[in-house]
Amino acid sequence: MPSIDGRRVVADLKRLAEFGRYKTGVHRPTYAPVDVESRHWLAEKLREAGLDAVIDGIGNVIGRNPKARRRLLVGSHSETQPYGGWLDGSLGVIYGLELARAFAADPGCAELGIEVAAWADEEGHYGNFLGSRSFTDALSDEEIDQTRGRDNGTPLREALERAGFAGRPRDRVDPSRYIGYLEAHIEQGDTLDTSGLRIGVVETIVGIWNYRVSLVGEQNHAGTTRMVRRRDAGVAMVRLATRIHDRFPEIAGPRTVWTIGRILLEPNAPTVVPGRAEMQVQFRDADLDRLAAFEKALHELVNEADRAGPCACKIEPIARTEPRHMDSGFQDQIEAAAEQHASGMHMRLPSAAGHDAAVLSYRMPAGMMFIPSLRGISHHWSEDTKEEDIVLGAQVFADAAERILRSAH
Amino acid sequence: MPSIDGRRVVADLKRLAEFGRYKTGVHRPTYAPVDVESRHWLAEKLREAGLDAVIDGIGNVIGRNPKARRRLLVGSHSETQPYGGWLDGSLGVIYGLELARAFAADPGCAELGIEVAAWADEEGHYGNFLGSRSFTDALSDEEIDQTRGRDNGTPLREALERAGFAGRPRDRVDPSRYIGYLEAHIEQGDTLDTSGLRIGVVETIVGIWNYRVSLVGEQNHAGTTRMVRRRDAGVAMVRLATRIHDRFPEIAGPRTVWTIGRILLEPNAPTVVPGRAEMQVQFRDADLDRLAAFEKALHELVNEADRAGPCACKIEPIARTEPRHMDSGFQDQIEAAAEQHASGMHMRLPSAAGHDAAVLSYRMPAGMMFIPSLRGISHHWSEDTKEEDIVLGAQVFADAAERILRSAH
Repeated sequence: MPSIDGRRVVADLKRLAEFGRYKTGVHRPTYAPVDVESRHWLAEKLREAGLDAVIDGIGNVIGRNPKARRRLLVGSHSETQPYGGWLDGSLGVIYGLELARAFAADPGCAELGIEVAAWADEEGHYGNFLGSRSFTDALSDEEIDQTRGRDNGTPLREALERAGFAGRPRDRVDPSRYIGYLEAHIEQGDTLDTSGLRIGVVETIVGIWNYRVSLVGEQNHAGTTRMVRRRDAGVAMVRLATRIHDRFPEIAGPRTVWTIGRILLEPNAPTVVPGRAEMQVQFRDADLDRLAAFEKALHELVNEADRAGPCACKIEPIARTEPRHMDSGFQDQIEAAAEQHASGMHMRLPSAAGHDAAVLSYRMPAGMMFIPSLRGISHHWSEDTKEEDIVLGAQVFADAAERILRSAH
Repeated sequence: MPSIDGRRVVADLKRLAEFGRYKTGVHRPTYAPVDVESRHWLAEKLREAGLDAVIDGIGNVIGRNPKARRRLLVGSHSETQPYGGWLDGSLGVIYGLELARAFAADPGCAELGIEVAAWADEEGHYGNFLGSRSFTDALSDEEIDQTRGRDNGTPLREALERAGFAGRPRDRVDPSRYIGYLEAHIEQGDTLDTSGLRIGVVETIVGIWNYRVSLVGEQNHAGTTRMVRRRDAGVAMVRLATRIHDRFPEIAGPRTVWTIGRILLEPNAPTVVPGRAEMQVQFRDADLDRLAAFEKALHELVNEADRAGPCACKIEPIARTEPRHMDSGFQDQIEAAAEQHASGMHMRLPSAAGHDAAVLSYRMPAGMMFIPSLRGISHHWSEDTKEEDIVLGAQVFADAAERILRSAH
């Protein structure tokens, strides 16, 4: 069995967290200079592990094993949310790196190859799952042409140019090359932490549906424009958002979640009546019918607000992922590895977060393993996991990868 | 009577609008490079008009008349709102420049001096009425130390340093030097435009009360954090804002206005539950008791939301101006000048916008004159006024200034 070096895993995670460190977390948006720097560092680490590493035309770092006869693709994404955590994404990438090293060092694994991927922009600074979608042929050049950064409106092409990735070929998957795809991640929720368990075997990844709702009124002076004459897009937005938050609980299932995480007012000045407003509405569930019911309710609320006036309200879908089941054989192997190293300390559970594994699952069998998140906190700089859980997780993950590679036929 | 050159007034307004042109309007935030450039241009124009011009330590451009025995201070501010109009503020500054030239060219006005001020940051990119408050001894060095830009958080000291104004003395008013202060402005509302009138004589300037309401919850992952566990500061904000918009109409007078013009979410990412939110609430009225009733209602709503949870809600006042009456003698002189040049085409009215004249009125008699705003649009790049109204206004204003200077004893 390939044996991981726990201290090396933790040291590499800490080193990677230096790129964009913010308090005890990391601020490393996709294609920002620190993100580009970290991808070059990762490519170098993959080369040291004996892999042929490239950074491709969308920023994916991919390390290929030139010798193995059976290959498992292992990875996650390496950018972070704004002022986010040090483990989210990075954990799965460093686990991949460690597995490549551990398998290479184990003479019994000579024919078993770990290939590693650090996907670009899973976190959606520009698009959604740009890297894994590019790799799986689900991202067109036209979409790249039209995509802009959500924070500063920078065209994606310009960001790639500045990052030095423009003009490079985009790597596309050859599914016959792989047994499948395996991804490790912190849970990000508190199910494992509150149950005192140490390993999660992911059964499904929820579907995530996203919408942009825009409201257009008339920008004007906040003193001289009488209330009756106003068409205040900010008022229209807070009223519509309140109605959404009132309506959604009526149709939610036990695990449905919804979020209005992003709001823009224009011009967003205290003495100007807002002329335009925008909000992004998202909901998640593992059940397709429930997702459809949410969409219907959202459309109804927006249309009602539009008809009622005085602002024009419009809704457009911006990204939608379907609920995805993880490969059941992979689930069994992860569970068996967990039972060996942490008997009775594991459970099966759904993932309420989206992951690159959902994208990869369209092209090859895919599996995911969780380790606990302290207090379930994620997408925040204070996100953390006990060091012993990080180390245990790496060993379970290596064992699971070997089982999956050996069981393939 | 000093005679103004209408073509020169319009040409100078158009030249000033080149600094930061945006569509048919102007984007010239205080202390931005284009704003600094425009202030140097203004100082040079004042020198050409025979004034001793300086830019002081807060960015005020002040042109002094070295010869006159009676002096009227005339001006307005010269920065703009974001993507704002070409007349707002600039009109009063260029009128001041034109009056200085017209008085200098009139041998009958040899003893009557027009001094000109282009105040800094009336629009509040950093503070509120920074320039006129500095000039009237109502802005302390401590406040300057603590002030930051509302858009980018830049310390005011740093902005002044970059603008090249740091270290210069701040000019302070000597009230005995002046008969009073006179300011011309576009109305910004639609009272004159819809009545078909051409000159407004301002009776009072409303009081403007501003508050920052902040809501603190817990930032977390938008997928893995179950709804029952969330403390979403964005939800708390839109609910509180909706309650404010429901409550205020019940206590409003016929001319009260209120605005939530600025909203911030943190981190404002679509897949992150907002951990912190902030909104700026403002209301305006000419009646002090009504302003106090609004403040009471706002405090009640914020406290209710705070008690109800799950987010902590806090309110702090950030700027407050009292309603200010304009000098009644000045009103009579402006009205007489309007009657001479546009008989029957003028009216008295309150100003629903705040103006530097309100600040100056604490130290000397102050008066204001309005010209129409087309469709009442202001604080937007499409703001405009008919050229013949701009020219007529300049002549009425010059005549009013002469009447005020001659009637002083």
